[in-house]
Amino acid sequence: MSAESGTVGRGEPGLVGPGEPGTVRPGEPGTVHPGEPGTLRPGEPGTVRPGGRTARVRAAVLRAAGDVLAEEGFAHLDLADVARRAEVGKTTVYRRWGSVTGLVADLLSDMAEQSSPRTETGSVRGDLRANAALVRRTLADPRQGALFRAVIAAATCDVRTAEALRRFYDVRVSEWVPCVEEGVARGELPVGTDAAVVVRAVSAPLYYSLLTVGVVPDEGAAVRAAEGAFAAAVAGVYVVGE
Amino acid sequence: MSAESGTVGRGEPGLVGPGEPGTVRPGEPGTVHPGEPGTLRPGEPGTVRPGGRTARVRAAVLRAAGDVLAEEGFAHLDLADVARRAEVGKTTVYRRWGSVTGLVADLLSDMAEQSSPRTETGSVRGDLRANAALVRRTLADPRQGALFRAVIAAATCDVRTAEALRRFYDVRVSEWVPCVEEGVARGELPVGTDAAVVVRAVSAPLYYSLLTVGVVPDEGAAVRAAEGAFAAAVAGVYVVGE
Repeated sequence: MSAESGTVGRGEPGLVGPGEPGTVRPGEPGTVHPGEPGTLRPGEPGTVRPGGRTARVRAAVLRAAGDVLAEEGFAHLDLADVARRAEVGKTTVYRRWGSVTGLVADLLSDMAEQSSPRTETGSVRGDLRANAALVRRTLADPRQGALFRAVIAAATCDVRTAEALRRFYDVRVSEWVPCVEEGVARGELPVGTDAAVVVRAVSAPLYYSLLTVGVVPDEGAAVRAAEGAFAAAVAGVYVVGE
Repeated sequence: MSAESGTVGRGEPGLVGPGEPGTVRPGEPGTVHPGEPGTLRPGEPGTVRPGGRTARVRAAVLRAAGDVLAEEGFAHLDLADVARRAEVGKTTVYRRWGSVTGLVADLLSDMAEQSSPRTETGSVRGDLRANAALVRRTLADPRQGALFRAVIAAATCDVRTAEALRRFYDVRVSEWVPCVEEGVARGELPVGTDAAVVVRAVSAPLYYSLLTVGVVPDEGAAVRAAEGAFAAAVAGVYVVGE
């Protein structure tokens, strides 16, 4: 199945905030992570999170937590270790996040907050292709792909992580739902099409490939994912009640 | 998203061999598991695995391993515990399977061997719907759904489990590929359609729902999965080279 053999994208922004993928090198300054869109220079105008100490601590802790998840998986996440990596006092981390699941839930909240805004290409087909390309780049990014796999694995055995993950996808899907709704309004898709189901149908084959057979989806797979969801939607498969 | 709220199917056979799902009650005689299609009565004509002691030991050990995975997840799988549950000598288990990953690999081999044969309804659309219904019932089955989630989670952090899981899906997909090939031969789908991609497209939304948002797909989701893959295939989305 050559069409499913993966190439790893780099140098492109992913699903979660701006970032430069690249191989994860722990502790290296200048690498970009969720929770810290660019090297953090407090107070400098134009940075996304100029905030005070509280915001800086959160950014550092979430970055460290993401590093551990991407490099070692959920089973190795430990609050004391995260505090050490983040160069933040252990008691601060325990007081603010309380537990590993609390920390992962906050990381997923942060990822949801930074979820890329929808693309507007003028057609639902173009928008769905942009969405598929974005999901693919995220899953192909070494750090973010590993992070998603770790969190999804953790969600299979931890209820709070599962809830946080579900909220993340709800936010992400609702961000892209207007693409489909506007496509329906423009007459490109049948009236009654369930927009959220269409958005999820675009992501499904890309996640399926990564999670079940461990193959990073390539650009061809992203195009097929978008075109497949579009063709099914045009055929009325996602019309509610049918 | 009412269409994605899950009901848990019961009393129906799943993807992996014949079985009666039901709530998992460890150690209860008469529950049916992968590796043991029916209560095992050695030598009795008509049983699928009449084999000798070696086959009985394998069946008991794989059943116990599946129980642990379904109930407690991969992290709690321990060879000594499996041996105790299976009422098999610990040295036998260590000698034959060597490690936890070796045991999971053999469990997945056994699941692949017992993968349900394809359905023949006379149309590719009917066959894809049967396939979707089968996948959905498997994921909705309390024991098998939990087993798949545990193995998929384990595959994210263990290379040997990932390889075994990939082989399992290769076997399963190749079992169903002829449905699509015959549909192409009958003129129901375009010449050049990549059959394996169509089969994977049927499974993708069902696994995606379970793994990312933790929602067990319902019967409506299975119909949409099959109809979506069929509509996309008819539109030529899965034609190789396009």
